[in-house]
This record gives sequence, C-alpha cells and structure tokens, in this order.
Amino acid sequence: MRIALDGMGGDYAPREIIKGAIEALNELKDLFIIVTGDEDKLREMLSAYPAEVADRITIYPTTQVITMHDHPKDALLMKKDSSLYKAVELVKNGDAVGIVSAGNTGAQMAISLFVMGRIKGIIRPAIAVPLPYPDSMGILIDGGANADCTERELLQFGLLGKVYLENILERDVTIGLLNIGAEKEKGSKLTQKTYALMEKAFENFAGNIEGNELLSGKVDVVVTDGFTGNVALKSIEGTAERITEVFKKEIKKSKLAVIGALLMKNSLKHIFKQFDYETFGGSPLLGVNGISIIAHGRSSHVAIKNAIKMCYKMASQEIIAKTIKQLDNESFKGKD
Amino acid sequence: MRIALDGMGGDYAPREIIKGAIEALNELKDLFIIVTGDEDKLREMLSAYPAEVADRITIYPTTQVITMHDHPKDALLMKKDSSLYKAVELVKNGDAVGIVSAGNTGAQMAISLFVMGRIKGIIRPAIAVPLPYPDSMGILIDGGANADCTERELLQFGLLGKVYLENILERDVTIGLLNIGAEKEKGSKLTQKTYALMEKAFENFAGNIEGNELLSGKVDVVVTDGFTGNVALKSIEGTAERITEVFKKEIKKSKLAVIGALLMKNSLKHIFKQFDYETFGGSPLLGVNGISIIAHGRSSHVAIKNAIKMCYKMASQEIIAKTIKQLDNESFKGKD
Repeated sequence: MRIALDGMGGDYAPREIIKGAIEALNELKDLFIIVTGDEDKLREMLSAYPAEVADRITIYPTTQVITMHDHPKDALLMKKDSSLYKAVELVKNGDAVGIVSAGNTGAQMAISLFVMGRIKGIIRPAIAVPLPYPDSMGILIDGGANADCTERELLQFGLLGKVYLENILERDVTIGLLNIGAEKEKGSKLTQKTYALMEKAFENFAGNIEGNELLSGKVDVVVTDGFTGNVALKSIEGTAERITEVFKKEIKKSKLAVIGALLMKNSLKHIFKQFDYETFGGSPLLGVNGISIIAHGRSSHVAIKNAIKMCYKMASQEIIAKTIKQLDNESFKGKD
Repeated sequence: MRIALDGMGGDYAPREIIKGAIEALNELKDLFIIVTGDEDKLREMLSAYPAEVADRITIYPTTQVITMHDHPKDALLMKKDSSLYKAVELVKNGDAVGIVSAGNTGAQMAISLFVMGRIKGIIRPAIAVPLPYPDSMGILIDGGANADCTERELLQFGLLGKVYLENILERDVTIGLLNIGAEKEKGSKLTQKTYALMEKAFENFAGNIEGNELLSGKVDVVVTDGFTGNVALKSIEGTAERITEVFKKEIKKSKLAVIGALLMKNSLKHIFKQFDYETFGGSPLLGVNGISIIAHGRSSHVAIKNAIKMCYKMASQEIIAKTIKQLDNESFKGKD
C-alpha cells in the first residue's frame, strides 16, 4: 500500500512530516510512502533515519510550495508543480491510495475536488472533523467546507460520515442532527427539513443533539452545515484555550497553587491529552473520489503519523467503494 | 423605581427569588419590587426578613404557574393569571419599569412580545446573552430567539446590542459579526450581505470574528442569527462542563493530585467564577417595548440579585428611549 504525503505542507515541514512518516512506516510494515517536495531538503531529512525504513519512502521532486496565504483558486491554477498538487495527482493516477497534507486547507479542498472529482451522486464534499468523546471518538460533518447547504446535502453528509466512521470504529454508528432543541419541530427551516429526510433514510438516526452535547458522545456522527459546524468547533477550541489561559494565570498568583499544580502534573497531562487533536491526526475530506486527509497546520510528527494511519485504514476498509455502494439507495440521490 | 419579579419562575422559586430580591433592595435604596405569585408562600418567605426591607416588596397574588414543560403558545393563551404573565402586564401598564423571571424562557419571550409589543421599526426581538471576557463583559445577540434571520434583522440586532451594552458599560462599544473567516468575502450568503450593511451603518464595526474568539474580548457586541448563536453558546457551555468533569475524574485517580487540587482550591474557585453566568444575572430580550430580563432556570439568589440590578440599570439609562432614538436612522429601518 502506497500513500502520498505532502512533504512541504504545515508549520513544521518538512522535519516533522518526515519524522511522522518514519514512525508510521515502523508501525505499518506493508506501507510505502511517496513524499512530494524539495528533493534536496527531503533527502537530507531522510538521511537521518536507518535505511531499512527510509528506503520505503520515495521522493517525488516538486518545485513549487503552496503557502498558508495562497488563495485556493490561485494555488489550483498556478501551482501545478507544488508538493500538494502533485501528491493529489498521485492518488488520481492510481500511484497512491490516498494523500495526507498539513498544508493550506482551502487549497487542499480545491485541488482534491478538481483533480479527484466527486463520487458520482455526491452533490458536495464535506470535512469530517474528529470529536474527542469520553471513551471513543465521534465526528462532526461538515466542519467548514460548505457555508450554505440544502437539506439533501446534509443528508448526504450523514451518509458520508456514517460510512467513514463505521469503518474506522468497526461497529454500527448513530447519526444526529445538530440543532437548537431536542424536539423534531425545533430549529431552522433547514434543520426541520433535514430531520424529516434523515428520519426516513437512516435506521440509526438518533434525532437532534444540541451544542452542549457535542463532546458528550451522545451520537457518533453529528451532521450540520459547514457554517454552524465551523463556529461550533472553533467555540469548543476557544473555550478550551481560554480555560487553559485562566488556569495558568491563576496558578501564578499563589505559591500554594504552584505546588498544587506540580502535584497534579500527570493528571493535567491526561486532561490536555484528551482534547488534543494530534491523537486523531486529521480530518478526511469526504465525498471526493479518493482519500484526502487534512492534517492541522501545526501538526507535529505524532499528528502526521496518526493521519497516515487513518489514511491507511480508510484505504484498507475500501471506504470509497463502500460509500458508492450505500449511495445507491433512492433516499440519498442528489443532483449529479 | 419599581421592578416586577416573577416569584414562581425557576428551579429554586420562590425561596431564592425572594432572597435575591431582598439583597437587591439592600443595595439599591430607591428600589421597590412587586413580586407575583402564590400569596401565602410568598408571605411566608418574606416573614423571614426584617420589615424595613421586606416592606419595599409588594405581593401581587396570582393563581397559575407556568412550568418548564408548558409550550409557549399554551402559556400565552391559557395562563393569563400566571406569575409570569401578570408580571409582564405590570410593565405594560406602567406599574413597573421592567420584569425579571427565571421561569420558562420560551413563554417569557412569547408573553413579553405579545403583551409589550415590539419597539416601532424593530422586525424581531432578540436575546442578548452575556459573554465572560477576561477583563470585561461582552454580549452575543441573538442567543436563540430567531432560528432563521435576514441580513436586516441581523443589522438591527447589532443596533439593539450596541445601545444596550454602551449603556451598561458606559463607554463606546465595538460590533463584530460572527463568521467563519476574517475576510469580508468569507462566510454564508447571509453573513456576506450582513457585513455589507453593517460596514455602512456602524462607525465602530470591527468586522468578522470567529468562534474561537468568542471569549477573547476582541469585540464587545457579537452579532449572529439565533441558530448559530444558540449552538455557539451551548458549545462553550458543554466544553466548560466536559473539562470540569475530566478534571474531577483525573484528580480522583491519584492521591498526589487530590492534595494538589486542595492546594489550588482558591485558584480553582477563581477560575470557575470567571465562567459563572450568575455574575451577569440574566439576558435581556431586546427589541420589545419594555425591559424583560431572562434569568437562568437554575438561578440562585446571586443571579436574581444581579438580574434585578441589570434591570434597574437598563431603566435608569432609559435604554428603550435611546433605542428608539438611534433607530431613527435610515440604515436601520425595517418593515414594521
């Protein structure tokens, strides 16, 4: 199995990217990785690792780099020899089963959609963002790819999320609709119409869930439009950051508190670990005709390793083929 | 100055309601309170307090109680002798300057809107929910009154929030639009159209703000539709709750951590205090032709006291008159 890896994308590229690749190769013995990017830099990085592992990495030289400031459209049209563009092309051409990048998210979405195309029948691709649950993981879909959505698109997000998560967790999953009340008739016109479609289409439909239940594990797949999804995810992120800041500030005010915090060091580590996106590696863009994993821009080697493992699992489970099969049901058909 | 208080609304009514009223009266020497509800129960509660303060409370006997399970429409039509309905009527009839209730939020909105009416020119009222900022307070408007909104409604929410907060904080305030990107062209069709209107209408328009900035204090008034607003606020609440739970669970796992937490006791108290809705008392329903403060269902006497003080300040500052004056500007006019 070969995975394409954008060697130049992310705040700590290429060092952390290569380190993460090596770690993934150590865990997955039948994996091969094609890294795209600056040949000299990548070769230098690789030389630090034992040949028996590093040899399972092939360098695919590219001359351009997409920065975080590039507009997705410009990246798509003018950076065809970038590490990201070429990595996506490798998947399109069948040279790799999927692509992982920690680079410009907008550019990755645009290039993945343009180069790989959509799965036939899918109206719009969406981002499935992992949610840290107390004893498991869930996903929120769409995490921000589509600001304005129709009820049929939301229904399809539910299907995309379901097929993905049931193959990752290897069990049946429940599907919920993010809303502003528990009852069926609550919410906006969009959520009311979506509720009616979902109720018919999904056996495991669990109804509405509210913002305060997003981290509770109440449902496995949380469906929402990309606007609400993005605001909710960033509200969670901002709250966790703010609490951490207040915590650090309060501790500094008293010597007793400093000692207390030291005694709690291991417990605090565990707490932060539970909310750490690195554990999950990345968020797949679902609905495109290929596997494309969006890793966080600040990904360290741990996040990259986990994103590669996620890509590997999605390919092993043949997620795309399974999605196509489940889409072949009258309920889910959209305009092509 | 006389304020109407729903004596039967809230999980801890009437005990905490009366206790909060007494505390507010102790702080505000020219305040009088009319409490609506069960005469015998209220009289019994009042008898526990010194006459010189308790005498500034008048009991207005009512026979019905609106529960948390009552549908707003049913409450409005069938419970005209409820503590909430009568309290709102006291404001409508000029017997009180405003009303505070910790009861059924939907019923309070419906009854306030029906009995008080809208301010002339306002399309829809909205809820202004306090945001705990590091060194101040902000508001998010709409916190959940309107699931589907137009750009003109959002513009008016901005005005309602601005007049309210600049009179509470007694300084100029900035206005931001909750969106999924910093740039003007980002977001949904609704936020793009709203941005264009706000940019023209507000001198202190600060542009878009994202979910992760909601607790940062970057802007004073955050404008959004009631669907997104409700999801964002509940996401913040859910995250804070989840972190608290994980914290408590982790501490129990180790004796060192227990000792650490004990040493940090005061610091932890300060941390939780900063996120405590009780400090703010309640959320005003803005845009109705009178002051109506929605307090949390779980309000203790502290929250009730602070909600009464907020009502008092809004009345002293003549918020309604100021809103009417500022609405008299071509930019803000909606359909009446």
